[in-house]
Amino acid sequence: MIAIGVDVGGTSIKGAFVNENGEILSRFSMKAYNENSPEDEVGRLCDIINKAIKDGNFKEKIEGIGIGIPGIADMDEGRIITCPNLPTWNGFNIKQFMTKKTGLPVMLNNDANVAALGEAKFGSGKNYQNLLMITLGTGVGGGVIINGKIYDGNKHQGGELGHMVIKLNGELCGCGRRGCFEAYASANALIRDTKKAMKKHPDSLLFIIEKELNGIDARNAFVAAKRGDLIGQSLVDQYVMYLSEGLINYCNIFRPEAIILSGGVANEKEYLTNKVTAYLEKHTYGMRGSPKVDVINGTLGYDSGKIGAASLVLFK
Amino acid sequence: MIAIGVDVGGTSIKGAFVNENGEILSRFSMKAYNENSPEDEVGRLCDIINKAIKDGNFKEKIEGIGIGIPGIADMDEGRIITCPNLPTWNGFNIKQFMTKKTGLPVMLNNDANVAALGEAKFGSGKNYQNLLMITLGTGVGGGVIINGKIYDGNKHQGGELGHMVIKLNGELCGCGRRGCFEAYASANALIRDTKKAMKKHPDSLLFIIEKELNGIDARNAFVAAKRGDLIGQSLVDQYVMYLSEGLINYCNIFRPEAIILSGGVANEKEYLTNKVTAYLEKHTYGMRGSPKVDVINGTLGYDSGKIGAASLVLFK
Repeated sequence: MIAIGVDVGGTSIKGAFVNENGEILSRFSMKAYNENSPEDEVGRLCDIINKAIKDGNFKEKIEGIGIGIPGIADMDEGRIITCPNLPTWNGFNIKQFMTKKTGLPVMLNNDANVAALGEAKFGSGKNYQNLLMITLGTGVGGGVIINGKIYDGNKHQGGELGHMVIKLNGELCGCGRRGCFEAYASANALIRDTKKAMKKHPDSLLFIIEKELNGIDARNAFVAAKRGDLIGQSLVDQYVMYLSEGLINYCNIFRPEAIILSGGVANEKEYLTNKVTAYLEKHTYGMRGSPKVDVINGTLGYDSGKIGAASLVLFK
Repeated sequence: MIAIGVDVGGTSIKGAFVNENGEILSRFSMKAYNENSPEDEVGRLCDIINKAIKDGNFKEKIEGIGIGIPGIADMDEGRIITCPNLPTWNGFNIKQFMTKKTGLPVMLNNDANVAALGEAKFGSGKNYQNLLMITLGTGVGGGVIINGKIYDGNKHQGGELGHMVIKLNGELCGCGRRGCFEAYASANALIRDTKKAMKKHPDSLLFIIEKELNGIDARNAFVAAKRGDLIGQSLVDQYVMYLSEGLINYCNIFRPEAIILSGGVANEKEYLTNKVTAYLEKHTYGMRGSPKVDVINGTLGYDSGKIGAASLVLFK
């Protein structure tokens, strides 16, 4: 069994042919142009797919196409509702269009959910049945896997794990509320807090690191902390506290077997997961024998989106 | 098909024979004595059940016994871990014991989960497949129903919906963390805030209401608000804000079709749910067409525990 997984990004569309062992057999990609009509763009995508099928000469049957959508869609019907990075796609029925052009069944889900499914089936989550994936990027995304399947609520619009208020009347969040998990645990939040700390401590090592890294992103605080800088350490400690408090909430709510961290800040790998694990062991509700939640990194990296999208079809 | 549902409380144990339509055919109850051994207490319960089966002369087969446990247990194995109100039961294998004494299969789950299942199957939740039940009592309990089944996470220890921090470093919660939903939305939290407001406003109508109601509980603020008292109104507004902010978090996380409110504070019925609904419509993440979550009251009242416990067996 083979499925095609497509990861739609704001600047490029990437895809892969994936077999039932989660192995990538071949890849394809194309640039995405915001100014073109979705019919042009997705038409081009279908041409690429049709050619790849022909050229690939695959021995097994191609079961269908799974797509991770960076936005909100009527996942069943296939109509895109809002795709912030590809606004011309709004209202476009990608499922109907692609089925017509390729003759294959098409399945959609949100990109964060799809990445979680990829890790759950073929990545670091493959030994767990119930897990969460939290993406610590520009925002905080989430995917919920229950009994090996995506749980995404009514009309596929649940699983918005970044938009849980952890600090009433706190920092303004992109969603319009104040104090969301995203407003404290995203890379953007860490960058905001790093800048604040630099303003307060003009002689901090952070200024040297800013020059070394050519700017300020989520890494700067970690680099400073690892070099023993006290401001950097307190930034990291504070970040770990915010992240962990949100994760403890999710432990209490879902009691998953594992939480997979991904996205920019998760590039700190064990340096971050070890600190979070230590915090969780100290503070988790239900020290009274509640089962431990493993906090781990994903292993599929950028392929999680493609493999996860294919998994929509492989495990339908 | 008939199942027996047992609701274990700190001072009494109540049960019912429930048919597959959720109708209660007969009831039984006994006082629970903390000082007795669990073998004595549960032995007495089994005698009552065995006699009720004999006397009942039921025409349909009795499929088993479901039990709602007010505490933590190894639900599969049947051993009680901690039952704060019945501490002598800790370590007791209620499942093994009752199966031996009655010859019937026995299934356990947490009392909040079981009540949610009862409402989901036969109460106000019966038209929904995905819902949450939030109990606003001494604490805040929760039950999660996904695809018509209880979701309770690893070792049945998820669904602790009261223990989500909504205000970092906020009020101390019984679980040891600060700022939990329970520390703001429980009846106890409202009582604390009512007392605080009375201290600050010694000429408030709340003092007259205290005399009328013979004390302070979750009702006082609502009575004052309904009579037009400004302090009472601001207490209710603040409570609605705390409750709704927590519920919005759960809308974003689960995007359920409905949230059922139960417990002491929910006795305010539509007066409360209307205010919460108005708040949710104003503030929910995803004004961009996210499906509405119905906030409703339960309809089974105290029977939700018994009917829900029976449902463990009826829908196993």
